[in-house]
Amino acid sequence: MRIDGRKYDQIRPIKITRDYTKYAEGSVLIETGDTKVICTASIEDRVPPFLKGKGEGWITCEYNMLPRATQVRKIRDITKGKIDGRTMEIQRIIGRALRSVVDLKAMGEKTIWIDCDVIQADGGTRTASISGAFVALVDAVNKLHKRTPFTVYPIRDFVSAISVGIVNNVRMLDLCYLEDSRAQVDMNIVMTDSGEFVEIQGTGEQSPFTRDDLQEFLRLGEKGINNMIHAQKESLKMDSLWIGTGGK
Amino acid sequence: MRIDGRKYDQIRPIKITRDYTKYAEGSVLIETGDTKVICTASIEDRVPPFLKGKGEGWITCEYNMLPRATQVRKIRDITKGKIDGRTMEIQRIIGRALRSVVDLKAMGEKTIWIDCDVIQADGGTRTASISGAFVALVDAVNKLHKRTPFTVYPIRDFVSAISVGIVNNVRMLDLCYLEDSRAQVDMNIVMTDSGEFVEIQGTGEQSPFTRDDLQEFLRLGEKGINNMIHAQKESLKMDSLWIGTGGK
Amino acid sequence: MRIDGRKYDQIRPIKITRDYTKYAEGSVLIETGDTKVICTASIEDRVPPFLKGKGEGWITCEYNMLPRATQVRKIRDITKGKIDGRTMEIQRIIGRALRSVVDLKAMGEKTIWIDCDVIQADGGTRTASISGAFVALVDAVNKLHKRTPFTVYPIRDFVSAISVGIVNNVRMLDLCYLEDSRAQVDMNIVMTDSGEFVEIQGTGEQSPFTRDDLQEFLRLGEKGINNMIHAQKESLKMDSLWIGTGGK
Amino acid sequence: MRIDGRKYDQIRPIKITRDYTKYAEGSVLIETGDTKVICTASIEDRVPPFLKGKGEGWITCEYNMLPRATQVRKIRDITKGKIDGRTMEIQRIIGRALRSVVDLKAMGEKTIWIDCDVIQADGGTRTASISGAFVALVDAVNKLHKRTPFTVYPIRDFVSAISVGIVNNVRMLDLCYLEDSRAQVDMNIVMTDSGEFVEIQGTGEQSPFTRDDLQEFLRLGEKGINNMIHAQKESLKMDSLWIGTGGK
Amino acid sequence: MRIDGRKYDQIRPIKITRDYTKYAEGSVLIETGDTKVICTASIEDRVPPFLKGKGEGWITCEYNMLPRATQVRKIRDITKGKIDGRTMEIQRIIGRALRSVVDLKAMGEKTIWIDCDVIQADGGTRTASISGAFVALVDAVNKLHKRTPFTVYPIRDFVSAISVGIVNNVRMLDLCYLEDSRAQVDMNIVMTDSGEFVEIQGTGEQSPFTRDDLQEFLRLGEKGINNMIHAQKESLKMDSLWIGTGGK
Amino acid sequence: MRIDGRKYDQIRPIKITRDYTKYAEGSVLIETGDTKVICTASIEDRVPPFLKGKGEGWITCEYNMLPRATQVRKIRDITKGKIDGRTMEIQRIIGRALRSVVDLKAMGEKTIWIDCDVIQADGGTRTASISGAFVALVDAVNKLHKRTPFTVYPIRDFVSAISVGIVNNVRMLDLCYLEDSRAQVDMNIVMTDSGEFVEIQGTGEQSPFTRDDLQEFLRLGEKGINNMIHAQKESLKMDSLWIGTGGK
Repeated sequence: MRIDGRKYDQIRPIKITRDYTKYAEGSVLIETGDTKVICTASIEDRVPPFLKGKGEGWITCEYNMLPRATQVRKIRDITKGKIDGRTMEIQRIIGRALRSVVDLKAMGEKTIWIDCDVIQADGGTRTASISGAFVALVDAVNKLHKRTPFTVYPIRDFVSAISVGIVNNVRMLDLCYLEDSRAQVDMNIVMTDSGEFVEIQGTGEQSPFTRDDLQEFLRLGEKGINNMIHAQKESLKMDSLWIGTGGK
Repeated sequence: MRIDGRKYDQIRPIKITRDYTKYAEGSVLIETGDTKVICTASIEDRVPPFLKGKGEGWITCEYNMLPRATQVRKIRDITKGKIDGRTMEIQRIIGRALRSVVDLKAMGEKTIWIDCDVIQADGGTRTASISGAFVALVDAVNKLHKRTPFTVYPIRDFVSAISVGIVNNVRMLDLCYLEDSRAQVDMNIVMTDSGEFVEIQGTGEQSPFTRDDLQEFLRLGEKGINNMIHAQKESLKMDSLWIGTGGK
Repeated sequence: MRIDGRKYDQIRPIKITRDYTKYAEGSVLIETGDTKVICTASIEDRVPPFLKGKGEGWITCEYNMLPRATQVRKIRDITKGKIDGRTMEIQRIIGRALRSVVDLKAMGEKTIWIDCDVIQADGGTRTASISGAFVALVDAVNKLHKRTPFTVYPIRDFVSAISVGIVNNVRMLDLCYLEDSRAQVDMNIVMTDSGEFVEIQGTGEQSPFTRDDLQEFLRLGEKGINNMIHAQKESLKMDSLWIGTGGK
Repeated sequence: MRIDGRKYDQIRPIKITRDYTKYAEGSVLIETGDTKVICTASIEDRVPPFLKGKGEGWITCEYNMLPRATQVRKIRDITKGKIDGRTMEIQRIIGRALRSVVDLKAMGEKTIWIDCDVIQADGGTRTASISGAFVALVDAVNKLHKRTPFTVYPIRDFVSAISVGIVNNVRMLDLCYLEDSRAQVDMNIVMTDSGEFVEIQGTGEQSPFTRDDLQEFLRLGEKGINNMIHAQKESLKMDSLWIGTGGK
Repeated sequence: MRIDGRKYDQIRPIKITRDYTKYAEGSVLIETGDTKVICTASIEDRVPPFLKGKGEGWITCEYNMLPRATQVRKIRDITKGKIDGRTMEIQRIIGRALRSVVDLKAMGEKTIWIDCDVIQADGGTRTASISGAFVALVDAVNKLHKRTPFTVYPIRDFVSAISVGIVNNVRMLDLCYLEDSRAQVDMNIVMTDSGEFVEIQGTGEQSPFTRDDLQEFLRLGEKGINNMIHAQKESLKMDSLWIGTGGK
Repeated sequence: MRIDGRKYDQIRPIKITRDYTKYAEGSVLIETGDTKVICTASIEDRVPPFLKGKGEGWITCEYNMLPRATQVRKIRDITKGKIDGRTMEIQRIIGRALRSVVDLKAMGEKTIWIDCDVIQADGGTRTASISGAFVALVDAVNKLHKRTPFTVYPIRDFVSAISVGIVNNVRMLDLCYLEDSRAQVDMNIVMTDSGEFVEIQGTGEQSPFTRDDLQEFLRLGEKGINNMIHAQKESLKMDSLWIGTGGK
């Protein structure tokens, strides 16, 4: 039995609220248990210098936590004068996860800015951010699509993320903060709806892990990803991206 | 008639949600029309260096907007490497407003960190921040008070803020973003429940204003402040600070 | 009787030295009592990005204190790596004050940089900066005007600033440092020669103030502003801006 | 056949030069093909604030590239004013890898600073850094051990790292720069001598990967790790850490 | 004949105003021709960390130019976010020059902060800064000496600086800005009253210089230094430091 | 007899390794005794803004030390957030030294970036950097020259640098770290093959120096420069720059 009564392979309740704020092209509040993240997708009609003139788009992500999203108040980045390594690592993984399912050429010369701002952090903020940001991204892309239909719809597949790990020698799915802070091994898995991996990042800083552990992580992760993609589809009211945009 | 159908002396609907997030000692979501600000109050058991050993407390404020709280995405401070002047000005005014109604000596050597993070900005974010932060402050102080009652209850009075201004030559109360962006004169008024001024800041950058304008601003401001303090009292379920804490 | 023997409604001696340094288009040393500020106006033949191509000019201000302008040596901004909030607030108010009396469209696509560098600080540096910078601005604009007369002379009115406040429960005009550091209420008033307000900023951090206080502040402020504008006119050897430039 | 004539499961020649510079407690030049990294381990007799008084040590890593370690000159971090995300991510992974095989309690209150400075970058700089830094770490720890023998020798196991990936649809081991820059999938594997995983980080930004791909990555990785640990042992002239330090 | 009518070995008029501002322990305005620098010396009762507990004092210098001290407005350091190399180089040379004539052990654990702020720059600002700062330093040290006489008076000798160079193939003394900007060789010489060198820094970036040039530079420099030290003595009303402080 | 057994006028062994790394157009490892610096020259096909369109080239230098190039680990610039004054001073002197022997107009609109990264620091890193960087510069220029011969070969002369100083009252050549750290006077001399001075920078912070000292410094310096230029020629396998590029 886990701290919050869940079974070892059970994820926390997921709630996805679309159109959470009114200005962004895509705006989602995702809640997984007590973890709450506002994910917005903003469209800009130009690309970073390294892509100028190549006819391709770009997706970039920024991640942040409100100072009191955590038990102890966290000093703002601007006060310390720099982004810490953890934040850097997280915003890079979110960006890669979303770009992996998008046909950037099909997007044309646009940048989509993904902002994931954590309102309340109870473990799994990076995986919740990926899962929520994907829904915001779909909404933003569909807004573009309604204005001027894409020749090729640029999103190729659903993508979601979940954490797995070993706590007290038990392998488990979707760690909350208390579990995460004492985990021996911690792994984040990002997968598509077609069951392929986009990113696997596992760390056994407290103790290394075996190939058997890894196999079980993949099994647990796949289960969690299925739940999460189901929640995304419910929220977006589409069974598949192709049906949802197939009308054109 | 105003853009959103209000009368010239009418404020927007106010909604104050306490305990909005779970970790902060005080946590409030304040909504005034479409403006939404998360205000948290966090207690730290030490004071900044300039107060060390003086037996006094301190209240400091940080203000920020989520990148897509606005119509056009705003670049994060940390990306630009500095806090802009507007943000600086705002967090200073919030800090002064709250400190003006608190007996810092009665607080003892503690710092209360006020964080105002704007989720959605439709004008009046600095005044909403002051009004919401006051409620978070009361909750945080009361949490301390319940643990170890203060000899002298440190909050002396309610404080609220509201904006007034001249738009299309009409003096009006509580400007929304569209009004604010074309205002000829813009004034922020911070008042206590006893009807005294804590801060007045008025700017006629587009055109100067007369003494008559000022008198009308004060009248409108007082009306708005009364509404706002009423909402604070409703939310806190106290008629006065003394009754609310009188039990001890 | 005040610390320096003045009456409650008396300002300190004002001395304005034009052409104080030789390179700037406008260069003024303003002294109000022991407060000394070098104000320069520098013309640049382009505007910031947000104004490019709009045919309008811009006025921007930077304010700073020499490290030993104050009793205790102040660390330079560059050493701390950031401009403090007070400096930000001050340079924003100076910029707004000057822009409020200038027809930016009449200026054409030019930027005027106002630099206010405090050599010695004895209270009222921000108001002295505004009053001195206005004279430097007139000199710079007239230099442009002599080269190529403006179709519409861009300065519409004189503008000056003065402080008022409550010290030891007495309302008084033009606070020196010792008064300012123990003021209960502190207000800066910026007015034009035609008697209208450009900015009012009053703070009762130590104790709130009443509507009566405010009325008296306005009366005292108006008196101080009249003295200051008189000194500006004497220095510029013009009774009005229109006569001074009327030849065209 | 690969660009440089290697077989798909063949690593590049490894050369480890110990005592490469004269001041550091551990100083190694590691070369894997044309990738060259100077790894130093420096001992400091105190720990970061979050560990003070806990009786534990710490290992922290900084990674950097000389500006012309790469084909195109890279601007120095200090010129841009910040460490880029890639560097952050890399120095975090190196730190975690080394800490995972060290008993920090056994170390006592010391910090070991690992500096990995890339002289020439031809792919795999992060994995070469981990493998080389481990040797520098052993030398530094042994220097401490000779001065004052540890009660418990703090290094528990060898650790090495290697990259694997998919290039032109072929799964391969130890990617050089040309391969890495066109890889569809890229994975870094960090393993101990006892065959357990310390970190797995795989990214399929260009295209997702399957569970079969992952199994093959693990097989290739294990082969590469065995070669690398063999090179470490040769260089250190020890078969196992226990024998090497067993004399005490 | 030179641009300003001087002979090749003639320095510009020197004017030294002591007690230029009222707060600093030493405060000097030095004018050499149109170059004007405010030099202050501020005493702090502690030393930087690297000297703590050694019983020695320290002298450190900061140099800056007002934005419009020059023909074209110079952007403030804080706006660019860093001190430029020229400023760094200058403040280091000023610090070394002053420390070279001071017995830091005799000073005790105090820091003297030298601030050189250029009000108007017409060439030779670094040498004027050294010459003016020395006078401010003497005033500050004497203020300390009056309060509590030093056992050993810490200033050992007068120090001054002057520039020499080659312009249009003519070797000359004390270059003004127009000369400096087209100089082929530029050298700064810092000497004591006893005729010894404290610093020589010569650069032939436009064309190298010969040993003969160097000999003539030293001759010209010595002449200029004599003039400058004479002006310092006149201003301080002392013939020698020992007489001036000999009473004790 | 000196610490390392050298005579007072003897330099340390010089070793220059060309093509030290494979990407840079010029890449040199210079060793003078235990001081080791990697000097690279990188060509960029554009010039800084202040030279755009003038048809001239530019040479700029950056200097840095690996954290453990020194006895005590030095914190990286990026961690402190700024380049220290010593580094600034050094990279400016290297840039001036190289530019002084190059015809920038003959170079055309190109920038050559010189990077001097110190691997091991045992005194004289700035002079070793100049001497080594010159060789890297020649290699880079010759690479350009082979591709498209210059009309005028842009390098006019060899340039080298060496340090001299007074240690324990003895004037000596080429100070190692232990000598440098206790030197009373320290001077860096930069000279061309034709025996002219490019830069002289001498500091007598610990005690001033006489004209006699200076004459001896020049004599010692000239001897050291001759040795160093000889080593450059050996390494480049050219007796003179004109022969090496004699085709023109």
